[in-house]
Amino acid sequence: MDLDLARQLSVTSKSKILLLVMDGLGGLPHPETGRTELETARTPNLDALARESACGFTLPVALGVTPGSGPGHLALFGYDPLRYNIGRGALEAAGIDFDLQPQDVAARGNFCTVDSKGLVTDRRAGRITSERCGELCAELREIRLEGVELFVEPVREHRFVFVVRGDSLSDAVADTDPQREGVEPLAPQATAPEGEATARLVARFVEEARRILADPSTRSAGSGQAPPANMLLLRGFARRPDWPSMSEVFKLRPAAVAHYPMYRGLAKLVGMEALPAGPEMADSIATVRENWARFDYFFVHYKYTDTAGEDGDFERKVAKLEEVDAAIPSLLALGPDVLMVTGDHSTPAVLAVHSWHPVPFLMRAPWTRADSCDAFNEVALEKGSLGTFPAVDALPLAMAHAGRLTKYGA
Amino acid sequence: MDLDLARQLSVTSKSKILLLVMDGLGGLPHPETGRTELETARTPNLDALARESACGFTLPVALGVTPGSGPGHLALFGYDPLRYNIGRGALEAAGIDFDLQPQDVAARGNFCTVDSKGLVTDRRAGRITSERCGELCAELREIRLEGVELFVEPVREHRFVFVVRGDSLSDAVADTDPQREGVEPLAPQATAPEGEATARLVARFVEEARRILADPSTRSAGSGQAPPANMLLLRGFARRPDWPSMSEVFKLRPAAVAHYPMYRGLAKLVGMEALPAGPEMADSIATVRENWARFDYFFVHYKYTDTAGEDGDFERKVAKLEEVDAAIPSLLALGPDVLMVTGDHSTPAVLAVHSWHPVPFLMRAPWTRADSCDAFNEVALEKGSLGTFPAVDALPLAMAHAGRLTKYGA
Repeated sequence: MDLDLARQLSVTSKSKILLLVMDGLGGLPHPETGRTELETARTPNLDALARESACGFTLPVALGVTPGSGPGHLALFGYDPLRYNIGRGALEAAGIDFDLQPQDVAARGNFCTVDSKGLVTDRRAGRITSERCGELCAELREIRLEGVELFVEPVREHRFVFVVRGDSLSDAVADTDPQREGVEPLAPQATAPEGEATARLVARFVEEARRILADPSTRSAGSGQAPPANMLLLRGFARRPDWPSMSEVFKLRPAAVAHYPMYRGLAKLVGMEALPAGPEMADSIATVRENWARFDYFFVHYKYTDTAGEDGDFERKVAKLEEVDAAIPSLLALGPDVLMVTGDHSTPAVLAVHSWHPVPFLMRAPWTRADSCDAFNEVALEKGSLGTFPAVDALPLAMAHAGRLTKYGA
Repeated sequence: MDLDLARQLSVTSKSKILLLVMDGLGGLPHPETGRTELETARTPNLDALARESACGFTLPVALGVTPGSGPGHLALFGYDPLRYNIGRGALEAAGIDFDLQPQDVAARGNFCTVDSKGLVTDRRAGRITSERCGELCAELREIRLEGVELFVEPVREHRFVFVVRGDSLSDAVADTDPQREGVEPLAPQATAPEGEATARLVARFVEEARRILADPSTRSAGSGQAPPANMLLLRGFARRPDWPSMSEVFKLRPAAVAHYPMYRGLAKLVGMEALPAGPEMADSIATVRENWARFDYFFVHYKYTDTAGEDGDFERKVAKLEEVDAAIPSLLALGPDVLMVTGDHSTPAVLAVHSWHPVPFLMRAPWTRADSCDAFNEVALEKGSLGTFPAVDALPLAMAHAGRLTKYGA
């Protein structure tokens, strides 16, 4: 359902919708046992839930497409990820929960290493420590340019976010990252006439940064063994996307309960209020419980299924699934009218990266039809009544079961 | 997946993808046995393949839509057949593997019969023999028009392709075929101002052709019993479509292995190299084997399942399916990373025409999920994990499993 139709059909209600996202949920069979992570895990609560739910798989973007975290979540929030496409710089800013303003332009930065001729020898500066990254960002924050405010925020290892705040800025600026080594960083160029002033500002920042990073006194601040990180590269200049909010479109009061900043940042882009949450499921559930009355839509994010998958650690992913399973009764005790349990994408431990495979999904709600799915895993879910359906339709479906969508046409 | 997204996500790889198209593959139950052609055929190799593949059905165009050969194949090549629509004249030219140039305008021609008043009495001239058609085309090739080159190429029976080659031509010319009998052929008319010059050229060609075809010496060249075929009708004026190539969009080096010119022609429209192939599966496999190193995508076309279906010959279609089944081991021996077996559309023998039914599909590839489909037929495939999905998504799905698609969004 596109947002115009959603806006037209959505109505308010007292019902509450809870979306539990196990990041990277979907898996693939272990080569020795032939069973996926979910098939291997003991998940009596999720299995019981599956028996009384409508079950299937979500397709986050399209068949064969491996979603990043941004598209995977936006789809679950009801926003077509092919249409609501977030620029790299803005996503990085969201990823550190940086409060990007409408007039800001953000870029993803890498500290890199250049040789005496200025040619890039390492695009990631030997993956310097996050601590060193923080020190270098602090140095660069000393740069002043007239008429604008600058932000240089460390992310992790060699990565940082660069933000220019001022009037009449534009994101029509090309990457300075040449995407390969052995060449010079590119000069900041406008990609359209309206980007020229911003490109000139960026060029001045880069020149100042080059001078500071090349200064031996700055370089000696790090460990003697660290690679120099004597230059930087910028890419993905982008503004904060100006999207309709979930409250305007879906008439929901939405809250995000996520420990990791990236997911809070994404949720805020669609107008959710980001509530503080500790790292464990119990912390998230406590946060939901405390805020139960204030909101009618809760997005609860659980990260560790994905990190275990990305580490290729099948057993740890199994253990994390069992941890979530143990928390299901206390989620149910909150009494959501509609409960969805799914992931933003698959991260099979055997692949150790995000994958394109459809994502396990269940929805416990009033008025679901009977369904022969009897467990929450990739094989049993094949028997679900929902089949494989676009993730962007999960919220409208939940809204219908929550009595929050009116009839289309007379 | 649209081509812009495919272009954005596709990367090169050493992996190889093989698509085996059994033309008109899908069937319907025989009224006596209740079993489809695939259920009736002994296909141990395809059944074994199904057990280790992701299975389902492709939907070539849309639910309820019977595809022609063009749309059916274009979808499997990754091109949305509703968007990448080929004009009739260009399809006919592709169908005889005529090397249509960008400046050409092609039309489908029929020899027809007119009475002494010039009224059409038979739009197909009594379906003259292909030999007679060739003779008449040879006569028409004598026509000369200043500034352009003309081609008149026989197809089969009363059908031919007419091509004008020259500068500044346009396909904005209306059909001369009135689509009914008892009226005169229509004069070639421009459908837009840019078509006027071309319409005048076509009108001169038609007048010359009328004179030649009406000449008793020409008419007597055929059998005395043949209908006169003393006039012609033209329809579907079209240029060669200017589509992005598979190599540009999908970063593949694609080859087509097809005995019939129509399928080579279609494959060339999306930039495949058409390799010569004999009529049998063994010939095609030999061609693939000889060219294995030069390409990383092979489209292998097998025609006889469709011709048997179109002839309403259930038993022959069964036999042809068994012939393909016997060749499966030598296809597998080539070692494709991803093997897809499907059809361009269904041609149930009980209908004896193309039909709208979804088409059996299997994909053997790394990283497929377990799937309860245990045989390659319309009933067993219902248990496949892929369900019924758009045929246009088959290539992107295969690309994902072949490690040829990167992540969408960060």
